[in-house]
Amino acid sequence: MKKIIMLLFSCFSSVLLGQQKALMPHSIDRNPQTSGDRFYLQQQGETVALQGNELSDAYDTSQPRDVLISTKGGVEVTTNDGEFSFQLGGRVLIDAAVYSEDKNTLGNGSELRDIRFDLEGRFYADFIYEMSIDFSDGEADIKDAWFAYDANYPWRYTIGHFKEPFSLEEMTSKKYLTFMERALPNTMVPGRSLGFGMNWIGGQTTFTAGLFGDDYNDDADDEGDEGDEGDEGWGATGRLTYAPLADERSVIHLGLAASYRKLDDEQEFRFDSRPESHLTDIRYLDTGKLNMSDSLTLFGLEGAWVSGSVSFQGEWIQALLLRDEHENPSFSGWYLQGSWFLTGESRHYKQRSGRFGRVRPLNDYGAVELAARYSTLDLNVAGIEGGSSDNITLGINWHLNPQIRLMVNYIIVENDIFADADGDVIGEDEPALIQFRAQADF
Amino acid sequence: MKKIIMLLFSCFSSVLLGQQKALMPHSIDRNPQTSGDRFYLQQQGETVALQGNELSDAYDTSQPRDVLISTKGGVEVTTNDGEFSFQLGGRVLIDAAVYSEDKNTLGNGSELRDIRFDLEGRFYADFIYEMSIDFSDGEADIKDAWFAYDANYPWRYTIGHFKEPFSLEEMTSKKYLTFMERALPNTMVPGRSLGFGMNWIGGQTTFTAGLFGDDYNDDADDEGDEGDEGDEGWGATGRLTYAPLADERSVIHLGLAASYRKLDDEQEFRFDSRPESHLTDIRYLDTGKLNMSDSLTLFGLEGAWVSGSVSFQGEWIQALLLRDEHENPSFSGWYLQGSWFLTGESRHYKQRSGRFGRVRPLNDYGAVELAARYSTLDLNVAGIEGGSSDNITLGINWHLNPQIRLMVNYIIVENDIFADADGDVIGEDEPALIQFRAQADF
Amino acid sequence: MKKIIMLLFSCFSSVLLGQQKALMPHSIDRNPQTSGDRFYLQQQGETVALQGNELSDAYDTSQPRDVLISTKGGVEVTTNDGEFSFQLGGRVLIDAAVYSEDKNTLGNGSELRDIRFDLEGRFYADFIYEMSIDFSDGEADIKDAWFAYDANYPWRYTIGHFKEPFSLEEMTSKKYLTFMERALPNTMVPGRSLGFGMNWIGGQTTFTAGLFGDDYNDDADDEGDEGDEGDEGWGATGRLTYAPLADERSVIHLGLAASYRKLDDEQEFRFDSRPESHLTDIRYLDTGKLNMSDSLTLFGLEGAWVSGSVSFQGEWIQALLLRDEHENPSFSGWYLQGSWFLTGESRHYKQRSGRFGRVRPLNDYGAVELAARYSTLDLNVAGIEGGSSDNITLGINWHLNPQIRLMVNYIIVENDIFADADGDVIGEDEPALIQFRAQADF
Repeated sequence: MKKIIMLLFSCFSSVLLGQQKALMPHSIDRNPQTSGDRFYLQQQGETVALQGNELSDAYDTSQPRDVLISTKGGVEVTTNDGEFSFQLGGRVLIDAAVYSEDKNTLGNGSELRDIRFDLEGRFYADFIYEMSIDFSDGEADIKDAWFAYDANYPWRYTIGHFKEPFSLEEMTSKKYLTFMERALPNTMVPGRSLGFGMNWIGGQTTFTAGLFGDDYNDDADDEGDEGDEGDEGWGATGRLTYAPLADERSVIHLGLAASYRKLDDEQEFRFDSRPESHLTDIRYLDTGKLNMSDSLTLFGLEGAWVSGSVSFQGEWIQALLLRDEHENPSFSGWYLQGSWFLTGESRHYKQRSGRFGRVRPLNDYGAVELAARYSTLDLNVAGIEGGSSDNITLGINWHLNPQIRLMVNYIIVENDIFADADGDVIGEDEPALIQFRAQADF
Repeated sequence: MKKIIMLLFSCFSSVLLGQQKALMPHSIDRNPQTSGDRFYLQQQGETVALQGNELSDAYDTSQPRDVLISTKGGVEVTTNDGEFSFQLGGRVLIDAAVYSEDKNTLGNGSELRDIRFDLEGRFYADFIYEMSIDFSDGEADIKDAWFAYDANYPWRYTIGHFKEPFSLEEMTSKKYLTFMERALPNTMVPGRSLGFGMNWIGGQTTFTAGLFGDDYNDDADDEGDEGDEGDEGWGATGRLTYAPLADERSVIHLGLAASYRKLDDEQEFRFDSRPESHLTDIRYLDTGKLNMSDSLTLFGLEGAWVSGSVSFQGEWIQALLLRDEHENPSFSGWYLQGSWFLTGESRHYKQRSGRFGRVRPLNDYGAVELAARYSTLDLNVAGIEGGSSDNITLGINWHLNPQIRLMVNYIIVENDIFADADGDVIGEDEPALIQFRAQADF
Repeated sequence: MKKIIMLLFSCFSSVLLGQQKALMPHSIDRNPQTSGDRFYLQQQGETVALQGNELSDAYDTSQPRDVLISTKGGVEVTTNDGEFSFQLGGRVLIDAAVYSEDKNTLGNGSELRDIRFDLEGRFYADFIYEMSIDFSDGEADIKDAWFAYDANYPWRYTIGHFKEPFSLEEMTSKKYLTFMERALPNTMVPGRSLGFGMNWIGGQTTFTAGLFGDDYNDDADDEGDEGDEGDEGWGATGRLTYAPLADERSVIHLGLAASYRKLDDEQEFRFDSRPESHLTDIRYLDTGKLNMSDSLTLFGLEGAWVSGSVSFQGEWIQALLLRDEHENPSFSGWYLQGSWFLTGESRHYKQRSGRFGRVRPLNDYGAVELAARYSTLDLNVAGIEGGSSDNITLGINWHLNPQIRLMVNYIIVENDIFADADGDVIGEDEPALIQFRAQADF
């Protein structure tokens, strides 16, 4: 019986495919006009028939291909042979914060934290791309904009705008962080820049490194004559992770990263940081502009341990700034956090990229997670009065389903006397705050 | 015969589905690398096979689902079980205006009125979202950005950035308005804010209410010390509609709305309004900044009547501003409009949301609609010389098909002596203008 | 046998289609609530079943339609009858430049040249649209935003924001240019404006003309009273192309274009131009603001010749500015370029639109192209010291596949003494530069 069906099916496929080929020229080719070339792409590019299961040869674009289509709120289209794919999704993060103020007013309110739209795909089997843009502040903030050559396993080569490989918390998407905001030391982390990178994957090891220019919208202007332009800075960053244990529910992750950055011709450098709440605009910690700054060198250590529903994670980051005619300051900070899923889930570790991912609730009512974090950052070094701050955070996350999450964070902020936003606010401020997030991604 | 076919089909489905499952791991799983996790979503999320008609169980994401795909210029993908869906569309509105000027120059010209891009969908059956962004002014103006719990009929709970429920004309999408711009009193309507809302649907009745913060890009700064931040304002808004008659071609709509807003810590308030033309930047009506303003309370009455091709619609809105150490002004305005489809169509009323929707022409040559409106707004109250204005509009709409519309509006503007844009232009200006729109949505 | 299969198939289709129709109302119609109307579009609009091969009648939207879906990194959905379609794609262009400076510093660095997202489609058979937005500078720069009536072959009528038809190089997409940037005379070309246009296609001839307002984000303000608004300018532009030979590998293209523009009420005019590198912000050539300017008239001549792997292309452009109370300057510039595919490909000419398109490599290792260009622009006329410049460019392009391209350009810049960025930099500067591009489109 099965054989007959198979036979029927192959006949059926060819009937159908023949028909579609016959249909297309008439339907699509009509009205050939000036800008009409785009409507002919289908004939030159990847034309895909929905039915029929003969896999087409790679690079033979004259032949229809089977596609798989799925939606999880967004949409994904993949050719059956996996050589071409397209995915569109996005995220909506809505925040509100109430501040228990001490010395300064912090501004209760609400905001769109992320309104992001994300395109990604694969073409000609060997290349992948991503284009991700955030609109939450009413402008177009480019996040990921890169493409990569992905056909030389275990290596991948990437060019464009993407995250410099530094810090477990930075590498983990904001969608999957345990707390609403990253810890205080994250202000020292490079983040996204324009550059060229390569990844290598071993069994338990990953290595990622890259050469980077500045962020896409930085432009160095000399302080001298109007019209003159300065050179941009550049950086080199690398990260090594090792996960001797990476089961579904048991993980040991160790990581090491370093980064060197030659500053641009303006030679100005600044570290500043809000408390671990994005809604207020007050950045208590602020070194001010440090002129005659030449280069910044970073070191980072990472560790994470997952055992069933319990997990711990910590990082230590140090930054050494080299300045002309000034003492060279060395800033440092660290955090330690723990989390516990009351409902039995585990944090999801992705060994291939050395970072954490999406939590999938085990029960219909979702997953509930309790978490706590201590973080500290000290910017009082070498005569620079940037301030020092400790934040203690208690958090509850309710993952209603894999794509929706509600979060509450209670944060106690302890600032020293120099944490005065470079003189704009009163130091030794010790506010507390409670903040909420509703998050959906698709 | 039918039985055999069904049998054949189910065998056929399983053959095919089996094959697809076998194919995917090879094709998609290849090259597991650092950022490659995204290519595995298909296995964890909603993977959908095109053929096969066994409906998968809810929440069982390991099993392929059937999808329906449609295009009407945009694209829509829905799983057959309706639990997941995705829709992408947009709109292009192109305007031109010619002014018959009286005392002031108004600036003939053309503009992109709306260039909007819209994502929406459903996931895990119970949740829906929308993300809609307008780029017409060269920035990213976030319109809708919300998600909602939609599984407790007749209630729906929404969080994010969306329209406060006030005014029939505001609730109706600009795509479906009878005139190019909303009437003068619309300047008093709250519009979109960040908040939490709930809807209730009865047979002939709808009730919508919400608690709102400010608009997404408002941020309150205290006037005092640099660095200090003020609290944002908040509001509560509710709307009740009753439609005892809501047939295809006969509608009676009545509505009632109220809104309270506590202003933010800046305590500044301003009403201003262009004439009913967006192209000029002159806002004749302008109260200027009213300081020490504490709260704003709004009341609105709505009525609409459709009888075959003829329809009437009107609203009255009143705004009471409470100020410290000042008299409390109470502004008000109203409009009344009528429309007639020469070609026999009716305005399309949507009872479930208490607003008007898309017109579908009955004939190949489209639908032609004549319309007239009188509107008035008076901002001269309590010593405030904000000006008063009447606008009379005559309009012709040609709906070429359900998604394309051409519009012409002729507007006679009558301003009083105080309608001087807070002193920037000459008052008692009485220009006329003709404006055109070409609109496509998809 | 084939007959039986066909019979089986048609039964099978009807079973399946019937089932889908039955399923939809239950699944999609559930939870009818306030903003839920969007989920009913499927019933009102173009609902499409995946299986079944009966073509539905035009405009009968109650009946499911067959669709074809393809991905080439982006996605394309077309109904089998070709009456509706949707396409989403984009591009990522990443540049870096190193300057061998002479008298001025030019600023080595990297940038995102284009981060573009593109929607287009067809609806109701007769109408097409395009919406294309660039985010590369962190804002939303609207490129194409138009729709067109496309059912009166050989004519097409377009309204919206699109390129005024002038210059072969301007008409050709940046994705398909031989060099990274357009030649110096391109600064005189109108580019995109808001307007109305029409195209006509003959056998070897195309004619395109349009009436245009200003660019979408221009707004004319009078210099007089605050609040007053000036009229926008307008223009009329037309282009005629003739291609007596337009084979796969042999092309002769001739073109002629003219443009008239009435300037807006500000009456200020300026030509300025960077060297043929976008990364530096220094525009050596700069007429400064020329006041009392009334109108600009342009003439352009184009020629291109493709013979196998070799091609040549050149253009000459002249601009006549009419000024009140000043001499009327007449600027002009031209370029000539040649290219040679080492790997045997030809430049792809699109006769229907009179421009060049995508190169498709013949070999697995891609296509390699060598190219050279000389261009010149003289803005020293009628007492205006705008400067004069010659650029010589040598380029290598490596098309890895039809959608990925790497480019290197080496450029020698020769400026005269007046090429001083209107006084901001030192004239007679003669730098050289090397710039790189990695380009992906999908």
